[in-house]
Amino acid sequence: MARVIVDVMPKPEILDPQGKAVAGALPRLGFTQFASVRQGKRFELEIEGEVTEDVLAAARSAAEQVLSNPIIEDVVAVTVAEDEK
Amino acid sequence: MARVIVDVMPKPEILDPQGKAVAGALPRLGFTQFASVRQGKRFELEIEGEVTEDVLAAARSAAEQVLSNPIIEDVVAVTVAEDEK
Repeated sequence: MARVIVDVMPKPEILDPQGKAVAGALPRLGFTQFASVRQGKRFELEIEGEVTEDVLAAARSAAEQVLSNPIIEDVVAVTVAEDEK
Repeated sequence: MARVIVDVMPKPEILDPQGKAVAGALPRLGFTQFASVRQGKRFELEIEGEVTEDVLAAARSAAEQVLSNPIIEDVVAVTVAEDEK
């Protein structure tokens, strides 16, 4: 079973309250190394059979049309998972 | 500014209603290539300066302690972003 990974992040100019909350919590817990945090989404799409160019193109379309909100989010990566189980 | 990426996914044995909802929506929109979908989280931690082994170790600890809920989620990857802006 092959997998395509789609990464979606809030656009840089969009406020990211979840990321802000995490960034605020980290120093209180002793993690002072991190200047800022942004939180996005990661999707794993399972594919039966080969990941062909057609499947990848469909994944890219699905990423833009279904998995992300193009007004506030960017699709930052659509990749084939290396470990094919 | 360097970035460390943390990927968190629901454990395989945990129900993932968000992923199920996406998997249900895709075929209705013409995307029939995907057998199943799981939705997780992606964090981008910004670091001022170099990503040393210490920073990566801190990111791994933060991923386990703050960014994921170890009862229902797995930290699947902690990586340094290639494009350092």
